Amino acid sequence: MARIPTPLWKNLIAVQVYGANTGVGKTVFSTLLGSHFLKRRANSKWSLRYIKPVSTGPADEADDGYFQKYTGSRAVTLYQFKDAVSPHVAARDAEKIPSDGAIVQKLFSELRKFSPQDPEHNRSMGLAIVETAGGVLSPGPSGIPQADLFRPLRMPVILVGDHRLGGIACTISASESLIMRGYDIAAVVCFDDKGKYKNSEYLRTYFEERDIAAFELPWIPDLHGSNAEYESAKMREYYGAESNSQGLYNLADHLIDQHSMRLKELDSIAVRTSKSIWHPFTQHRSIEKPEDILVFDSAYGDYFQTKHTTETLDSLNNNTDYPVFYPAFDGSASWWTQGLGHGNPKLSLAAAYAAGRYGHVMFAGATHQPAITLAEKLLAGLKNPRLTKCFYTDNGSTAAEVAIKMALRASCRRYNRDGSSDIGVLGLKGSYHGDTIGAMDASEPCVYNKKVDWYRGRGYWLDFPTVKMRKGKWIVEPPTDAKHDFGDPSEFDSLDDVFDFKKREPRRDYHAYITQRLDSLVKHQGRKFGALIMEPVILGAGGMLFVDPVFQRALVNVVRRYKFDESVENPEDANAWAGLPIVFDEVFTGLYRLGRFSSASFLETHPDISIHAKLLTGGLLPLSATVASDSIFDAFLGEEKSDALLHGHSYTAHAIGCHIGNTSLQAMEELDRSSEWQTFRKEWQKKVGSAPSQADVTTPYNPNQSAIWSMWSQRAITEISHHPLVDHLIAIGSVLAVSLKDHSGSGYTSTAAIGLRDALLKNPLSQDVHIHSRVLGNVIYLMASMTSTPDTLSTIESAFEKQLDTIFNGSQ
Amino acid sequence: MARIPTPLWKNLIAVQVYGANTGVGKTVFSTLLGSHFLKRRANSKWSLRYIKPVSTGPADEADDGYFQKYTGSRAVTLYQFKDAVSPHVAARDAEKIPSDGAIVQKLFSELRKFSPQDPEHNRSMGLAIVETAGGVLSPGPSGIPQADLFRPLRMPVILVGDHRLGGIACTISASESLIMRGYDIAAVVCFDDKGKYKNSEYLRTYFEERDIAAFELPWIPDLHGSNAEYESAKMREYYGAESNSQGLYNLADHLIDQHSMRLKELDSIAVRTSKSIWHPFTQHRSIEKPEDILVFDSAYGDYFQTKHTTETLDSLNNNTDYPVFYPAFDGSASWWTQGLGHGNPKLSLAAAYAAGRYGHVMFAGATHQPAITLAEKLLAGLKNPRLTKCFYTDNGSTAAEVAIKMALRASCRRYNRDGSSDIGVLGLKGSYHGDTIGAMDASEPCVYNKKVDWYRGRGYWLDFPTVKMRKGKWIVEPPTDAKHDFGDPSEFDSLDDVFDFKKREPRRDYHAYITQRLDSLVKHQGRKFGALIMEPVILGAGGMLFVDPVFQRALVNVVRRYKFDESVENPEDANAWAGLPIVFDEVFTGLYRLGRFSSASFLETHPDISIHAKLLTGGLLPLSATVASDSIFDAFLGEEKSDALLHGHSYTAHAIGCHIGNTSLQAMEELDRSSEWQTFRKEWQKKVGSAPSQADVTTPYNPNQSAIWSMWSQRAITEISHHPLVDHLIAIGSVLAVSLKDHSGSGYTSTAAIGLRDALLKNPLSQDVHIHSRVLGNVIYLMASMTSTPDTLSTIESAFEKQLDTIFNGSQ
Repeated sequence: MARIPTPLWKNLIAVQVYGANTGVGKTVFSTLLGSHFLKRRANSKWSLRYIKPVSTGPADEADDGYFQKYTGSRAVTLYQFKDAVSPHVAARDAEKIPSDGAIVQKLFSELRKFSPQDPEHNRSMGLAIVETAGGVLSPGPSGIPQADLFRPLRMPVILVGDHRLGGIACTISASESLIMRGYDIAAVVCFDDKGKYKNSEYLRTYFEERDIAAFELPWIPDLHGSNAEYESAKMREYYGAESNSQGLYNLADHLIDQHSMRLKELDSIAVRTSKSIWHPFTQHRSIEKPEDILVFDSAYGDYFQTKHTTETLDSLNNNTDYPVFYPAFDGSASWWTQGLGHGNPKLSLAAAYAAGRYGHVMFAGATHQPAITLAEKLLAGLKNPRLTKCFYTDNGSTAAEVAIKMALRASCRRYNRDGSSDIGVLGLKGSYHGDTIGAMDASEPCVYNKKVDWYRGRGYWLDFPTVKMRKGKWIVEPPTDAKHDFGDPSEFDSLDDVFDFKKREPRRDYHAYITQRLDSLVKHQGRKFGALIMEPVILGAGGMLFVDPVFQRALVNVVRRYKFDESVENPEDANAWAGLPIVFDEVFTGLYRLGRFSSASFLETHPDISIHAKLLTGGLLPLSATVASDSIFDAFLGEEKSDALLHGHSYTAHAIGCHIGNTSLQAMEELDRSSEWQTFRKEWQKKVGSAPSQADVTTPYNPNQSAIWSMWSQRAITEISHHPLVDHLIAIGSVLAVSLKDHSGSGYTSTAAIGLRDALLKNPLSQDVHIHSRVLGNVIYLMASMTSTPDTLSTIESAFEKQLDTIFNGSQ
Repeated sequence: MARIPTPLWKNLIAVQVYGANTGVGKTVFSTLLGSHFLKRRANSKWSLRYIKPVSTGPADEADDGYFQKYTGSRAVTLYQFKDAVSPHVAARDAEKIPSDGAIVQKLFSELRKFSPQDPEHNRSMGLAIVETAGGVLSPGPSGIPQADLFRPLRMPVILVGDHRLGGIACTISASESLIMRGYDIAAVVCFDDKGKYKNSEYLRTYFEERDIAAFELPWIPDLHGSNAEYESAKMREYYGAESNSQGLYNLADHLIDQHSMRLKELDSIAVRTSKSIWHPFTQHRSIEKPEDILVFDSAYGDYFQTKHTTETLDSLNNNTDYPVFYPAFDGSASWWTQGLGHGNPKLSLAAAYAAGRYGHVMFAGATHQPAITLAEKLLAGLKNPRLTKCFYTDNGSTAAEVAIKMALRASCRRYNRDGSSDIGVLGLKGSYHGDTIGAMDASEPCVYNKKVDWYRGRGYWLDFPTVKMRKGKWIVEPPTDAKHDFGDPSEFDSLDDVFDFKKREPRRDYHAYITQRLDSLVKHQGRKFGALIMEPVILGAGGMLFVDPVFQRALVNVVRRYKFDESVENPEDANAWAGLPIVFDEVFTGLYRLGRFSSASFLETHPDISIHAKLLTGGLLPLSATVASDSIFDAFLGEEKSDALLHGHSYTAHAIGCHIGNTSLQAMEELDRSSEWQTFRKEWQKKVGSAPSQADVTTPYNPNQSAIWSMWSQRAITEISHHPLVDHLIAIGSVLAVSLKDHSGSGYTSTAAIGLRDALLKNPLSQDVHIHSRVLGNVIYLMASMTSTPDTLSTIESAFEKQLDTIFNGSQ
């Protein structure tokens, strides 16, 4: 769904007519507008098309016939149901319910067919009027409100206001329902009753104050009691009357202007961006020309609406009539944030509710319902008996800074250390915790920080064995230059086996190695540590490194038992931190990114501090939480204010973020029980052999068994892992990361996977499947939203596999 | 406006009945509900009140009479207009238009009068049904949509759905209009037509899926063509019928449950917060009991709805019937963020629009319209020819980190320095740039950072003379222990004179002092600096220190001319940075906080990097911008990716934040030209003498003269500055900060102003004026929103002055 371009063509003005209510005169308006454009041939020859996607009532009384009768232009109805009731009732009774996707696809095809040819000379312009049924949120055939049904197309809307008593309220509410779904209202129109309600007058002022154009329409002739012939004559006069034209002239001018302004604006955005925007994580010298900057016009579900470059569009238009945009699968889950689909109307409404109820509520010494509810939801969901207190900040990096401040203070206090002494953190090589100086200092020196003047790198980072699938087999592999420390690679039949601590821990003892490292650092070199901080399961920005879970668990256990100060005993309370405070940075891996609420749960261990962001707000806006145990919290209690954690951002626990957090967590908990996720899980319960062609053996699905699974199919990843271009891959939850063979060097600065990334986006193989993805060195990854369906992902997998083949064949 | 408590009493269920459209049966429903409660005397004796705030049409046909007729309970109409049209038309024709505030106040008073006595034994419960007119957004008498008119009360809503064709759309849209204004919908009800539309069935499912209770109502008897007597009998039967009662029983149970659950939830929030929340900037040991945590239930305009503590409420209820909440003036502008009023419906809709259109749009290598538009707006508004590039992050602290990274890299590159050498910043004592380690390191050691283990304090911070009003006179005063450096205090007639650089600069030469300091640091101590960073005009968190602008300007000028490396020439380009990159942190002072778009403009100088946050998003959610010049940007161009500014947060340039930013900046630009701000400015053009009683001399207002002004009146601040408890104060733009005389010590840990702060919030002087304020040591400050009106602020000033008097008189 939603793999359809926004229907914008240079030479076609396509508008969608919505009514503020039923019976407000949508068809009369459509006919008025059509009639006017037919008369209007000043600079362009206008061709006209009327489309009624869904119509109810007898076909011979339908709106398309009416339009055709008075304009002489072609009018089509895509789905006609004979009962004159709401489409969802009519369709149910008719026992044939077209899917939402089918309706939208059919409407798009109809528009594409019509979009006039000969675009270069601009001699022919088209106007397509798409008239909806009933009001803005009247249910479509499937029962979904119409404005949601048609949202994937996000056409400019003309809203026909309600001229009757009560109509002001209906019209404004209808406009708000459209706006909160991300629609642009090109114009509000209303029949001018010249009478005592004067809705049109009120509405014009109201909308113009809100920068929405509004127009008054000539009053419809009174046809009460007249016969059909008289009615026709009267209406022909009405549609043809010059005296009725002023408002329509203005409206038509406005639509034409808006269309050309929109195209002009779109053409300007990349250039203006290259002039005024300093991009994150971007070497601007590598942007050869402004057009290399992708322009996203909107997004819906799994797809970005991406603007074709002028160059591409020109070349495409030589063959066929291409729209300005193409839909691109959001293959990085919009920088790992995307959870509940772009343009999710529930999240929009939740954002608006909290903004309407609170705006900003300062949080020092105060509280509010969304903040406490979210804290409780997080604490409950993490199922970690140590964690009791939630501290809010704005993003993963600030949340990591807070975690570091917490952990260092707690350990410095217990071990009676002065902060001015050189306290470091323990971590893993390739870790990443954010871009503020404190968060950077908690990662080892690397390309991200080597030219940051204040970066100091305070700590020690251990090497570790990694998990990967190579040629259909899961293996645990030591780092290339540390085989003597970790032994030979081992093979597993499934990811479940990799995570089988009971079986694996007795066989693979990392404890000795880790203890030896700590002895060398602490006892021999005299180094001081204040925290162990790491990302559970996968180190994301470091290159999608899947850490051997047995190693990560061993590290936690060793640190907790290790004597960092011989004179200090670990506390007796089992929930108090021991050795060092353990910080898990779940910013990337937590909150269902890997299929579970908490990624710590994969390691069957409980950190003392846990960091959450990204999916916390379902991909809408920044909010983060640093959750800590009482034994950490207590380290900040004291007689002086300065003993406290004197950290706080202006928007700490901002009400909108917290409320969206609550809405998102609830939605994801529901997805966890959904049939879609059951489908993913079931596919992962099949045994997939080492050869891609081997037959599947299905075992019955057990929802209580918390097996490891991914939204990416075992079938596809097994095949991909055999591909000659692929060295290995990892897949868990919504994440698929493929390491390409690369003989030209590797690491962050490598350009290995860039060719594949670019080909997936442009995708000359198919005009429909474009994939926007991100690379980290020679790793290309795909990340699904929590709402991505098995169907969608299957399409993406196929496109990915095909593209690998094409590149391989091209390189032969 | 909005200085009215949310009308929630323990023993009164007060609901507001809204209609999805006109003619949906609001009055029949109200009467049904009333009739049901009268029959319902199981545990409590219910008393009943029907209130119609605004009614149109003949008084003898009005809804109150209908309700009274069938229930026998008292029904009142507050405003009756005789024409049966929309209230805004009826009121206009009637030539008497009650203000929105008057209507809301009258409704509140009516509810308060009714709220049943004897709350302790809970023997008597009340149900107040407040029925609106027309649809949810039908205009009230002033023309404002009703849901906006009544929003200050934010009563629980029962939405009567529309049972007619098209009614599903109307009902859902109406609910969305309510929700985005922050209303809680207690229930949706709809008459069950048992017919083919079946709206009630659809709506029940739709709303229940969204956690909103929905109920079907018994179909209204067909009275078509019947006479009045028959009609009465038929309706009496309808209202009395047991068979009609099931849905109503459920609804009534639900309302009763919701009411008691709401009270229970409210009572629990503070305790739950103290259990699960780790507050920012809070020494938790100082929270003696959970009830010390303020519970904000909602906010609107300038006011928080604050929950009375149980203790207070019990004591108050001994005297009179107090609601659960009291409105408290948001005197810290919600941690300095508040710009356009809490619960601003335009901002809510803007948030929803961007969420609906985009969700999250990843920003590396990509762009979108709200982000580029906001960058252009900022660049244009700052009117600084140096600034060309906008880098987005999430808050002031991260924006400061980015600014520091930018400045250090640029200077290290030009001066060919290695980042590992010890590069510091130049700044002012008492500065504050945020709580992440990098931002902290740019401030001098102080209470905020002294126990942060990784804090290092990298730089040198100069002392400076400050501006203040003492006993009605503006003075510039050197720091107590540095009189020999800066000379004696000087007196000025007005703030304009303090900022008169032409006149003052020749007389007060700070250049020699600053040059001497730099020589000592750079030439003698060999210290290296990479940036000058400071907050223009006022250092906020450092204690509301108003820096002498002549000193700040001199500092910039000296640094730009100073030779930090004798071997390197400053570039010829006048817009390139010279000496050191100058960073202005306008997070607090910028974007109209001090009355102007840019606070740099007060200093008549142009920084190379400028930081913006807080008001950028009108007090809704986090977003920040670091704006830089080309000569800074160019320092990150290079062949390698690692030469780039490798900084980026997940929600960089998130679409919602940027779109709200655009909406906010536009709204503030409009306020800048508004009559309210003209009123403030005019008052500041009057000459106010040193004695508070001296007569004013009015000079004509000249809008083009960019004189210094404040939203706080010269009259009031002059008086306050003479108060025996006050040492001095500052006022500019929306900021008023009063330094109290304090002999018990001072600084951040001082508890001097806390007594005044607590008294202002509890305010035993008045039951109506409560002020929530913040203190910094012995400074108490008040900060207005950009939309605060002269009337509101005048009330707050009076309350503040009275409270000072009370404390002074009490201490005598």
